[in-house]
Amino acid sequence: MKTVGYAALTAESPMAPFVFNRRALRPNDVAMEILYCGVCHSDLHTARNDWGWTVYPALPGHEIVGRVTSVGADVGRYEVGDIVAVGCMVDSCMECDQCRKGEEQLCREGNTNTYNGQDRVTRENTYGGYSKHLVVREEFVLRVPQNLDLAKVAPLLCAGITTYSPLRSWNVVPGSRVAVIGLGGLGHMAVKLAHGMGAKVTVLSRSADKKDDALALGADHFLLSTDSDAMTKAQSSFDLIIDTIPVKHSVDPYVSLLDVDSTLVLVGQVGPMAEHNSVPMLLGRCRIAGSPIGGIKETQEMLDFCAEKNILPDCEMIRMDEINHAFDRMEKADVRYRFVIDMASLNQGSNP
Amino acid sequence: MKTVGYAALTAESPMAPFVFNRRALRPNDVAMEILYCGVCHSDLHTARNDWGWTVYPALPGHEIVGRVTSVGADVGRYEVGDIVAVGCMVDSCMECDQCRKGEEQLCREGNTNTYNGQDRVTRENTYGGYSKHLVVREEFVLRVPQNLDLAKVAPLLCAGITTYSPLRSWNVVPGSRVAVIGLGGLGHMAVKLAHGMGAKVTVLSRSADKKDDALALGADHFLLSTDSDAMTKAQSSFDLIIDTIPVKHSVDPYVSLLDVDSTLVLVGQVGPMAEHNSVPMLLGRCRIAGSPIGGIKETQEMLDFCAEKNILPDCEMIRMDEINHAFDRMEKADVRYRFVIDMASLNQGSNP
Repeated sequence: MKTVGYAALTAESPMAPFVFNRRALRPNDVAMEILYCGVCHSDLHTARNDWGWTVYPALPGHEIVGRVTSVGADVGRYEVGDIVAVGCMVDSCMECDQCRKGEEQLCREGNTNTYNGQDRVTRENTYGGYSKHLVVREEFVLRVPQNLDLAKVAPLLCAGITTYSPLRSWNVVPGSRVAVIGLGGLGHMAVKLAHGMGAKVTVLSRSADKKDDALALGADHFLLSTDSDAMTKAQSSFDLIIDTIPVKHSVDPYVSLLDVDSTLVLVGQVGPMAEHNSVPMLLGRCRIAGSPIGGIKETQEMLDFCAEKNILPDCEMIRMDEINHAFDRMEKADVRYRFVIDMASLNQGSNP
Repeated sequence: MKTVGYAALTAESPMAPFVFNRRALRPNDVAMEILYCGVCHSDLHTARNDWGWTVYPALPGHEIVGRVTSVGADVGRYEVGDIVAVGCMVDSCMECDQCRKGEEQLCREGNTNTYNGQDRVTRENTYGGYSKHLVVREEFVLRVPQNLDLAKVAPLLCAGITTYSPLRSWNVVPGSRVAVIGLGGLGHMAVKLAHGMGAKVTVLSRSADKKDDALALGADHFLLSTDSDAMTKAQSSFDLIIDTIPVKHSVDPYVSLLDVDSTLVLVGQVGPMAEHNSVPMLLGRCRIAGSPIGGIKETQEMLDFCAEKNILPDCEMIRMDEINHAFDRMEKADVRYRFVIDMASLNQGSNP
């Protein structure tokens, strides 16, 4: 199927219209017309090869909401017209211990990324959701609950599950003392989700002007991380810290805020970490962990949880041809809190 | 009570005889004659003020075995002649949530270190086990099981509990895949204890000549950390890694060896850590943790476990006046695996 999207042809190129083919349906494939696609910081990193592993053309997008247009012969769960979603992965081995547990994101053979991945059959580079159409195997397609505002669902597929998963893995329950560091795309979802789970949520930020937003999003407290007295008072006061800062930073000021046997989970920063000190970890038997996205089962659970609690990200809708400007604004953290591309703006006929 | 020990008067002074007074017995105090004292790397760091927090005179020693010589009026658990032990702490608030749980090492007010601590009553600097006598409140005195070889028990009180505690905290059971990095005082105890718990133990070392020792101590496998092929093959293969390396080092080569949801526990390195990468943590939802010693209840449990399994450190006995030479040898890692001071060598009469 011929379709169109926006791709970067090199690390220096702007995102631009790109015509390509989606594969013919395999028996277990679902084809969809993409309605909305969220814009994640990883899209920008990949387009510009910040991590050094980009294959070009790079066609990002892994926060995808669409409508089913056709299904393969063996597809049983979805039919034409269903509103569905696709997140950060589109395939895995489905046979290893992790896949059998529903933790496909931890597949022993590595899962197949929605974009900049390698198709397990053809070995071709995968293209993501900045496009008009998508074909994905049934097992990696999610069902979007009917009561959710479709225009805002997309960011749940990455920002949502990336913060939901550690909140569940580290057993957040009503009354848990959860801190969220950084109030961006991931951070604002962490606040909403933790609040939805009944946690007592504190937002930490270097910017005092984030306070009103933090409280409006559902935080119980705001802690200015440059206020050393307040930081000292907050020592040993959290059961879990979700660290969403996307750039290299020291975790030292935050580890001291963990109570005994508690954990700081990195979800934003990818790559070499700044030096940090072992002493706060030793004194409190504390942990620093990483957490990727969740599995398909947990992603569906997250969507259903958001439907039940009516949790959605704060979005700013853009047209597909505004993506380069949106990338520039993201680099300045000038978005509250997630761009979503309205894919109706990408007219297949009028593009090259 | 007038007694004698070995202390450093400044960061540059060698350890030398030092006459001082132990406090008169409080009602809940136990007085003991010290029979043996282990030599821990922390003793050396403290004597030389490596961590910047030493109060002089510095009289180290927190791996202590002794015989009770008198007890305060309210002491119920011990009587004259009992063989007892004292570890790294001699007091705590006994009232906070951690103390009530038997986790005095995590006391909210801070526990009182056996040496270089501050007495909770007098606020005086505490003096450790490199001495002829010691007075400690009853709750911080351990009972030494009768069947253990007394000359080798002392190192259990720090090296033993420091490695036993994380093995228990991270739920090591028969069949657990445990790696131990570094084969020194802590490392060799970690191997013996993990083996005693039924774990499958792998020793990692940069020195191929540690292999025979590792296997003799109870390890099932030896992994040369400079062998990149072997390290690659070992990826994702451990449930727990006990990292006993006492100096600044990168944990990157080791985190990749952790299986999903598994933990590397630092027990040796105190202070700024070398830069490490978040990617292996993110990909495997892995954790890096610190762990201090254990509580008094767990320390007694460890002594009883060692008695049941007949686990004792490999020791080299020295005289008190050999301590400076022993420190020098420790700095070159020239000890297999723990020095123990025979306190009978410290003659109260013949010393100044």
